[in-house]
Amino acid sequence: MIREITVELGMDEMADITDEVREFVRESGKENGAVLIFSIGSTGAITTIEYEPGLKKDFPRIMNKIAPYGEDYEHHKTWNDDNGSSHVKASIVGPSLVVPFSNGELMLGTWQQIAVVNFDTRKRKRRVVLQIL
Amino acid sequence: MIREITVELGMDEMADITDEVREFVRESGKENGAVLIFSIGSTGAITTIEYEPGLKKDFPRIMNKIAPYGEDYEHHKTWNDDNGSSHVKASIVGPSLVVPFSNGELMLGTWQQIAVVNFDTRKRKRRVVLQIL
Amino acid sequence: MIREITVELGMDEMADITDEVREFVRESGKENGAVLIFSIGSTGAITTIEYEPGLKKDFPRIMNKIAPYGEDYEHHKTWNDDNGSSHVKASIVGPSLVVPFSNGELMLGTWQQIAVVNFDTRKRKRRVVLQIL
Repeated sequence: MIREITVELGMDEMADITDEVREFVRESGKENGAVLIFSIGSTGAITTIEYEPGLKKDFPRIMNKIAPYGEDYEHHKTWNDDNGSSHVKASIVGPSLVVPFSNGELMLGTWQQIAVVNFDTRKRKRRVVLQIL
Repeated sequence: MIREITVELGMDEMADITDEVREFVRESGKENGAVLIFSIGSTGAITTIEYEPGLKKDFPRIMNKIAPYGEDYEHHKTWNDDNGSSHVKASIVGPSLVVPFSNGELMLGTWQQIAVVNFDTRKRKRRVVLQIL
Repeated sequence: MIREITVELGMDEMADITDEVREFVRESGKENGAVLIFSIGSTGAITTIEYEPGLKKDFPRIMNKIAPYGEDYEHHKTWNDDNGSSHVKASIVGPSLVVPFSNGELMLGTWQQIAVVNFDTRKRKRRVVLQIL
């Protein structure tokens, strides 16, 4: 079973998609298994985070310390683009996450949500694939 | 098949859980497949590392360079907490890892162990889910 | 179904293995599922990236800012080695990636390729496992 969801996000914005994943697992009718969450595209990423207003700022701030926006990247010479930092951030965090479920429930911590992050420098409709493994 | 193990770890401590994963795969009776290792909670992470005393210090030291403990995080305003750095580190490294096995043996390098890391600022009983995919 | 491929890479070099993964999925005859890509060894990593000459330089440059080569690492005391930075980088990016496929096609973005990265300080034959989940 497979589903694609779309989330529109600005630069360095993230969205909590835990409910969508939970609903997908429920609809699959599977009691035990794992669900793959995969971000299509090279400037988006998937991770888990405590989804609250503070960390929504802290996480992209630290990622920007790692790969600062506005500096020179070789990538910019290839495409005359401005999002070299976005690509590097997304490759570090990674596009795939696998979460186990048991008795139909995601095995997440109470403060652990599934998030898609848009590291691109412009607003993007991020496509995320959900799949029962 | 699914199992939950618990490992008590101090701040920035890690544990080698390769033997637990190996034993789990053996008990599953499966010859070929993959095993999911998933850390429940938003301040723990799973990765592979050469598990030796030096890297057990180097890895958290570098992670702390990325997201320094003791600095200001917006997260602290939400909860009057001190572990904003922990959350950011855990979200970068990530909570899920999938390791293939063949003929009942994990396909790891000789110096590659499976580790759970506690980035939280206090001692935690980290819960880790093992699951055959 | 499982396959091991080998890619020889210098320090901080990466290779695009998307075609190998695509071919592997095709040969599996499976229409829908997911493919695990796993790097054997503790100084290699798997991620997705827009595989073009600029980012091939930007990504290792930023990783080297995180964990600089040539600095002191406790790891060097253990083995009188010089690749402490390599281990830390590989543990951050991670060795495993899971990519979904539908109708026999990998669900990647147009500019999103699957890459194996060699963070070791010497030329290495990186072993990568492909497995249908």
